[in-house]
Amino acid sequence: MSLIHRLDSRSEDFSRQLRTLLAFDASQDEAIEQAAADILRNIRARGDEALLEYTQRFDRVQAASVSALEIPRSEWLAALDGLPQAQRKALEAAAARVRAYHERQRASDWNYTEADGTVLGQKVTPLDRVGLYVPGGKAAYPSSVLMNAIPAKVAGVPEVVMVTPTPDGARNPIVLAAAAISGVDRVFAIGGAQAVGALAYGTATIAPVDKIVGPGNAYVAAAKRRVFGTVGIDMVAGPSEILIICDGTTPADWIAIDLFSQAEHDELAQAILLCPDAAYLDEVQAAIARLLPAMPRADIIRTSLGNRGVLIQVRDLEEACAIANDIAPEHLEISTEQPERWAERIRHAGAIFLGRYSSEALGDYCAGPNHVLPTARTARFSSPLGVYDFQKRSSMIHISREGAQTLGRIAAELAYGEGLQAHAASAERRLSP
Amino acid sequence: MSLIHRLDSRSEDFSRQLRTLLAFDASQDEAIEQAAADILRNIRARGDEALLEYTQRFDRVQAASVSALEIPRSEWLAALDGLPQAQRKALEAAAARVRAYHERQRASDWNYTEADGTVLGQKVTPLDRVGLYVPGGKAAYPSSVLMNAIPAKVAGVPEVVMVTPTPDGARNPIVLAAAAISGVDRVFAIGGAQAVGALAYGTATIAPVDKIVGPGNAYVAAAKRRVFGTVGIDMVAGPSEILIICDGTTPADWIAIDLFSQAEHDELAQAILLCPDAAYLDEVQAAIARLLPAMPRADIIRTSLGNRGVLIQVRDLEEACAIANDIAPEHLEISTEQPERWAERIRHAGAIFLGRYSSEALGDYCAGPNHVLPTARTARFSSPLGVYDFQKRSSMIHISREGAQTLGRIAAELAYGEGLQAHAASAERRLSP
Repeated sequence: MSLIHRLDSRSEDFSRQLRTLLAFDASQDEAIEQAAADILRNIRARGDEALLEYTQRFDRVQAASVSALEIPRSEWLAALDGLPQAQRKALEAAAARVRAYHERQRASDWNYTEADGTVLGQKVTPLDRVGLYVPGGKAAYPSSVLMNAIPAKVAGVPEVVMVTPTPDGARNPIVLAAAAISGVDRVFAIGGAQAVGALAYGTATIAPVDKIVGPGNAYVAAAKRRVFGTVGIDMVAGPSEILIICDGTTPADWIAIDLFSQAEHDELAQAILLCPDAAYLDEVQAAIARLLPAMPRADIIRTSLGNRGVLIQVRDLEEACAIANDIAPEHLEISTEQPERWAERIRHAGAIFLGRYSSEALGDYCAGPNHVLPTARTARFSSPLGVYDFQKRSSMIHISREGAQTLGRIAAELAYGEGLQAHAASAERRLSP
Repeated sequence: MSLIHRLDSRSEDFSRQLRTLLAFDASQDEAIEQAAADILRNIRARGDEALLEYTQRFDRVQAASVSALEIPRSEWLAALDGLPQAQRKALEAAAARVRAYHERQRASDWNYTEADGTVLGQKVTPLDRVGLYVPGGKAAYPSSVLMNAIPAKVAGVPEVVMVTPTPDGARNPIVLAAAAISGVDRVFAIGGAQAVGALAYGTATIAPVDKIVGPGNAYVAAAKRRVFGTVGIDMVAGPSEILIICDGTTPADWIAIDLFSQAEHDELAQAILLCPDAAYLDEVQAAIARLLPAMPRADIIRTSLGNRGVLIQVRDLEEACAIANDIAPEHLEISTEQPERWAERIRHAGAIFLGRYSSEALGDYCAGPNHVLPTARTARFSSPLGVYDFQKRSSMIHISREGAQTLGRIAAELAYGEGLQAHAASAERRLSP
């Protein structure tokens, strides 16, 4: 296995080769699906009792009641106080920046009045209650608490309930500190499909929420897909991806490390570099070989780059933009002179990082925009997680007496055309004699 | 079976009785799920060829090629010219109003520059291609073409492809005329799960789309759920609902007919009236009995009102608002004096109709707001179909050299905390020595 694939957009077979590298097995494991369905059914039927049983079975945590699984605010605040000063400051600085950015996403009501007095508009309301899933164990990322909870609170959601499994009772203090900083309202030490079920259906102790967000393992993902409709859910994410467009003027080491920063997530993560300059690609490849051994997560990086990473020589930056639009990457770095010029041509990407100083890592933690982004080409039709995911709209329609005369005639005509005569009658009743 | 249920919010068993009336069987038919999955698999594997076979089998339409199934624009224009003048005018007036309302929903780019030169923002881009499903046969509603296609075109979607089955070759001229008026770009005479598959995966003749919207039968709904992820989809709608809050001052006949206009959709549709005045509820009940026999769709209305319709006596309008929030209805009429006062208390509803002249029928056709609305309590977390469903956002992040010094230290601190050292290295490489 080579360190990383190389492709040339001029080669005849380029499209097919690229498709092969982009593909991943998204099929769902039937056993996991079935297990998640069983757990949900049990939680729905037996509530707290089932929740306690699963928590004992999967997390080896025995509790007398679900209330006893709630982690009190005093414990989060203690966790926050216990953080090393530098870490606490970094977390607070990141939270403030994320809040400032997301405040610009808040939508507001609007309406307009027509000549006959009819008023039309749209009312924006936050969700009542949101559930935030936070994985336990090694994938417990405090940054993810910030990125999910802050937009919900900026949207005005009164109650954000965090759930996080604590295997063998181990509670992650940085995650609890992040909850305190991001305005989370309650935290329960529960996880897995059982926590998703409790949030979706409610139990005697846990009030049902309206939407569940946050990453999780395959059981959590399967459970989220199943409760969708009863509650809203965020996207079920695929492997993380970065695509870098470079003109060859950025230090090759920087680009190599940027590729690593994506690849270190997991073996399925994908890192792609597009550049018109073959010599520069050679330089990056050499930098990869030179820098990789020193990386603490070198094994994961090696697997991920070897399987799914690729350096692509393109004809020019224009072609690079076209390829980027086709891939619709989660993260796109435009590491060139005058990056705005190329960004204008990008139609599909979750987040666009412009210029050589804008590394994805800054966006992952503290630039301000959200790090929950559409993967697997879904940036063609979806957006970063945002305040808009925690607000919803209602149409407002106040027809004046005069307006009902005009609109009633139009509606009745169209209703007759569709064979819906009671619709027509409802409009016609309001016509003045 | 009584004509319509009656409940009193004071009765001890009220909550349970209401829940029973609200419940409906949302379980999916395994045979339909399987059939849809098979059709999708076949379309994906054999493209045009499979599409032609299914179209022949299900619609009894034989075509030499999929291109021959495209309905040319000249035919839509002829259909438009052939409409009775009143109908054409009504359709055009409705389209103009829907367009005017939706133009206010268009989002635009924004950004801001920080003191150190860092620029953060959000870029808004329309989807490239949208598929619009329009049912054939009796449920072929031209108003639905308007409500789905116009927001997409207002969003700036360059290509809206409509598909509609034409059983035995019967093409619906009003639907084609609506396509012409709403700015649809292409129309194919295909339908069912096979049309959904063709739009999602693409075939030799039909380019793949990025999102599929529009109502359809159980096969279409099952296919849409399955292709979700490959493409975006709109909500899969449940039975339609109206909830009316009335203070007893609106003519009882008007309210009775408004209930009919919901109930005539289908046997599962739900119509609910809340009023503090028992004598008024008697009046409405009498009006129902008196007016029902003359309704062309009396049978459907009778079934739907008898099964799922209910007149509820509430303590006061305040309680009515609380019940409405709990039900989160698709359509809410506030037929009272000073309706704004009560609308302020409503947090969850797809569309809110204020005042006695604002009948739902006007909103269904021509008030301007969309008639595709969240059903089955999903108004707790989702919104009417809108321009925002056809635009998506990309985060824009341009960090200055100076900004990278501050942000790099924060990001590195947090990345080390999460054990992601390549992330830290990527941030630290950009620190000046």
